[in-house]
Amino acid sequence: MASYDDNNIFARIMRGELPSHKVYETDKVLAIMDLMPQADGHILVMPKSKARNIFDVEPAVLADLMKEVQYLAKAVKQAFNAEGVLIQQFNEPAAGQTVYHLHVHIIPRKEGSVMNGHGADMEKAEVLAANAEKIRQVLQG
Amino acid sequence: MASYDDNNIFARIMRGELPSHKVYETDKVLAIMDLMPQADGHILVMPKSKARNIFDVEPAVLADLMKEVQYLAKAVKQAFNAEGVLIQQFNEPAAGQTVYHLHVHIIPRKEGSVMNGHGADMEKAEVLAANAEKIRQVLQG
Repeated sequence: MASYDDNNIFARIMRGELPSHKVYETDKVLAIMDLMPQADGHILVMPKSKARNIFDVEPAVLADLMKEVQYLAKAVKQAFNAEGVLIQQFNEPAAGQTVYHLHVHIIPRKEGSVMNGHGADMEKAEVLAANAEKIRQVLQG
Repeated sequence: MASYDDNNIFARIMRGELPSHKVYETDKVLAIMDLMPQADGHILVMPKSKARNIFDVEPAVLADLMKEVQYLAKAVKQAFNAEGVLIQQFNEPAAGQTVYHLHVHIIPRKEGSVMNGHGADMEKAEVLAANAEKIRQVLQG
C-alpha cells in the first residue's frame, strides 16, 4: 500500500488550500458535500488525522469517525426526507477509492430513485451550498 | 422506522436456529460468509446485541463493531490476495437493506474484476465453506 500523500485533495481542503462545502466540523472530523453526489445530500465524513484508508487508520480514530457518521446519517436522513441511508467506504483504487485520505460516504436514499454513479457528474455549486445548509439547519435543530 | 424483529435471519443464525458459514466470533460480534457474495470472500460482520441498523444502534456497539470490521477487512484482503476492500452498510429498504439486523459488508476487490449485484446469486455451500476457511487460516496466522 502506498504511504499517505500530504497533497491529496482532502488534506488540502483541511489546510484551507482548496474550497469545500462544509457541513460539520469538530477538532477530530470534517464533513463536506461530495462534489459528484450519487444522490442529493451525499456527504463525506473524514478524520482530521492522517490516514490513507481503513488499513492504516488508528482504531480509536475510526471509532470516533463512526460515531460522527452515525450522527450525520441521522441528520442527512432528516434533511432530505430520505427513507434510507447508504454508507460506503472505499479502500484502494481496486475498490473505487479516488482520494487517498480515509473518508466515509453517507448517501440518502428514497424508494425507486436511481443512484448516480460514483464520481460521475459534478453538481452545481449553488445546489451543493443549499444542500449543505439543509443539513446544518437540522444539526442546529 | 420499524422496530427490531427477533425473527430476522441473522437473529436466528445467532440463536443457532439457522446454519451459517462462520468466519469469526467474539462475545460481541459474529462474522459470516454472505450467501450471495458480490465477490469471492464477501463477508458480513454484525453485533450480537439487537439493532436494526445505524439509526438505532448504541454508539459503543457501533464502535466495537468497526474495530472488528477493520481487523477483518485486513484478513479478507490477505486471504483473497485482494488489491482493495469495499465496505458497505445499508440502512432501510430504500438503501438496499434486506435483513433487519445491523451488518457491515466487507467485499474484497481486484482491479478489473466485475462485482456481482447485491443479493443476486446464491453461492455453492462448498465454495462458501472453503472461503470461510481461507479467512480463518489468516486470522489464526
